[in-house]
Amino acid sequence: MNRPVRIVSVPAGADSTEVRVGPGLLSGAGELLARHVRPGPVLVVTDGNVAPHHLPPALRSLEAAGFEGRAVTLPPGEETKNLDTVRELYAALLREGIDRGSAVVGLGGGVVTDLSGFAAATWLRGIAWLALPTTVLAQVDASVGGKTGVDLREGKNLVGAFHAPVGVIADTETLETLPARQVRNGFAEIVKAAFALDAGLLPALEAAPGRLLSLPGDEIPDLVERAVRAKARVVAGDEREAGPRRVLNFGHTAGHALEAATGYGPVLHGEAVAVGMVAAARISAARGLLAPEAVDRLRAVLRGLGLPVSLGDLPARPDRDRFRRALLRDKKRRGGRLALVLLEAPGRAVIAEDADPDELVEVTYGGGDIS
Amino acid sequence: MNRPVRIVSVPAGADSTEVRVGPGLLSGAGELLARHVRPGPVLVVTDGNVAPHHLPPALRSLEAAGFEGRAVTLPPGEETKNLDTVRELYAALLREGIDRGSAVVGLGGGVVTDLSGFAAATWLRGIAWLALPTTVLAQVDASVGGKTGVDLREGKNLVGAFHAPVGVIADTETLETLPARQVRNGFAEIVKAAFALDAGLLPALEAAPGRLLSLPGDEIPDLVERAVRAKARVVAGDEREAGPRRVLNFGHTAGHALEAATGYGPVLHGEAVAVGMVAAARISAARGLLAPEAVDRLRAVLRGLGLPVSLGDLPARPDRDRFRRALLRDKKRRGGRLALVLLEAPGRAVIAEDADPDELVEVTYGGGDIS
Repeated sequence: MNRPVRIVSVPAGADSTEVRVGPGLLSGAGELLARHVRPGPVLVVTDGNVAPHHLPPALRSLEAAGFEGRAVTLPPGEETKNLDTVRELYAALLREGIDRGSAVVGLGGGVVTDLSGFAAATWLRGIAWLALPTTVLAQVDASVGGKTGVDLREGKNLVGAFHAPVGVIADTETLETLPARQVRNGFAEIVKAAFALDAGLLPALEAAPGRLLSLPGDEIPDLVERAVRAKARVVAGDEREAGPRRVLNFGHTAGHALEAATGYGPVLHGEAVAVGMVAAARISAARGLLAPEAVDRLRAVLRGLGLPVSLGDLPARPDRDRFRRALLRDKKRRGGRLALVLLEAPGRAVIAEDADPDELVEVTYGGGDIS
Repeated sequence: MNRPVRIVSVPAGADSTEVRVGPGLLSGAGELLARHVRPGPVLVVTDGNVAPHHLPPALRSLEAAGFEGRAVTLPPGEETKNLDTVRELYAALLREGIDRGSAVVGLGGGVVTDLSGFAAATWLRGIAWLALPTTVLAQVDASVGGKTGVDLREGKNLVGAFHAPVGVIADTETLETLPARQVRNGFAEIVKAAFALDAGLLPALEAAPGRLLSLPGDEIPDLVERAVRAKARVVAGDEREAGPRRVLNFGHTAGHALEAATGYGPVLHGEAVAVGMVAAARISAARGLLAPEAVDRLRAVLRGLGLPVSLGDLPARPDRDRFRRALLRDKKRRGGRLALVLLEAPGRAVIAEDADPDELVEVTYGGGDIS
């Protein structure tokens, strides 16, 4: 295998997680896992969309390294990310004899990696897991930083744990089997990384966005690696999300509320976050923190990538009252203060500790007086 | 409050947990929690046996420190320690608005502290919790070391997390409401601490065991404190139970299998561990590691405390085949090797890395040729 391997080291407690980015790396999954876990049975969690394309090579790689891969294929979609599925995973872990010295492998998008990571975090008080993300979203965001989670009916990721994988393999070739809308969805998190963390990502996003959506093999690995590196820097030293790491929530306060207000499903996470980023940028500009041109630049980048910039672009209309109630629940859950990530410039985020939910409602639903 | 407070510091990751031992300390629960968590709602988890005695003073203490204590009272008993109960706790956490800056308080025995600790470990990816153990077992064992857990039908503590409480208050006066059998049950873990970790505990256990069972206020706090200190020493540096901490399993390999072989319930944990300790000590003597007199001494201490020393003393007869199958499952779960904690002397334990399950069956079920 002579392909270039990009390796990013993400701090994880006393250890660190090795994130490998590049085309064709899935075939190295077994070898990477074998550095951390002795041969024996491992539980591979995947979903019905991913399995036909990527499960056979993943199993072959594991078997070549001495593992017995036992697969659980879940129904695709966010609605799978619930406690009933976690129980099914516990039953599979028991059935397949997965012990403290063994591992879980999550092969799929964020739903699969969040679920498999949570099962690993709580099985026998925590066993090893390997993340094999196959979506742009999971490669640049979900698999980096150790967050695992499960939804309750009342909200996303209410249950979860911080439990870093022993390794992450972001095989950029696996992205080629994604539907176009899922590709765009994932790019929203790269745009977030560019505007909240690292403006150095912008030139590539602005040069030929249409080309990026076709996943050119010479550019995507660089972009994914750079986004992972940007995230790794803020995760370092703040693994429990008490401080600086919160800038990763740029666009996510309104984004989560838009997902809630549309009942999770019709509007994808990245689509909701795209609109949320524009809202946060507009508030930043209205407060005089951010030049209005930067808001236009954000809009242009998102449009170039086929992402929504306002409510009218979304595939479903989020009800204003439900949106507001979701923000208030968020505020309550965070101790009565709604922290909002604002921008001072592309790549430079600041946190407004006590934002007004109604200001966010106003901006998102179109108070015409804010730029 | 002029009563003596004994404080033991137990390492917990980068932090440490303060364990306070002594009579009447429950009234300081609110003050201790307030050092870690800001005022607001906290969820107090307890059970129907404990609530009538200790919930009102616990709530008063929390309220005096500015908390709003919201109680969930669970049915008493091991069968409550399941995933359905965890779901109920999530629903209560949601209902009571427990956010990342708030806390869970576990008031009760090991079932309550294990469950409430697990809910805290997995709510919003981990929030603070305070342990208020009210049984001897929970005060000397369950609350120290950060283990939390939930049973599946197939086995105890299969699901769980390491998540240390921010503090532990072992109010030795709360023990006075325990039934006599539960007091004896808890003393088994003090005997374990004496034989596996700290022979300095033995004189007090041997002097007047009958008196100890009446929970004399001048001796129990010393004994609990010393047992906690002994455990804290081995937990230090091995919080994930990879190495030295495993000596805490003295008597537990056969003990867990005896519990499994009687269907969890008829034989209490400490009763099963008592018989398991005798079995492990006999194997130690048969291997020439331990003087036969030390086995007699262990038996005498257990008998003095009204604890069983052989199968015939147990309130239910564990089936031999079920016992053997439980050992084999245990072995399988630990990567195909059954580690057995043996003794070289009272207070000095060693680990036999690859024990033979059938030897343990033979000794426990009475091969007459082993001393």
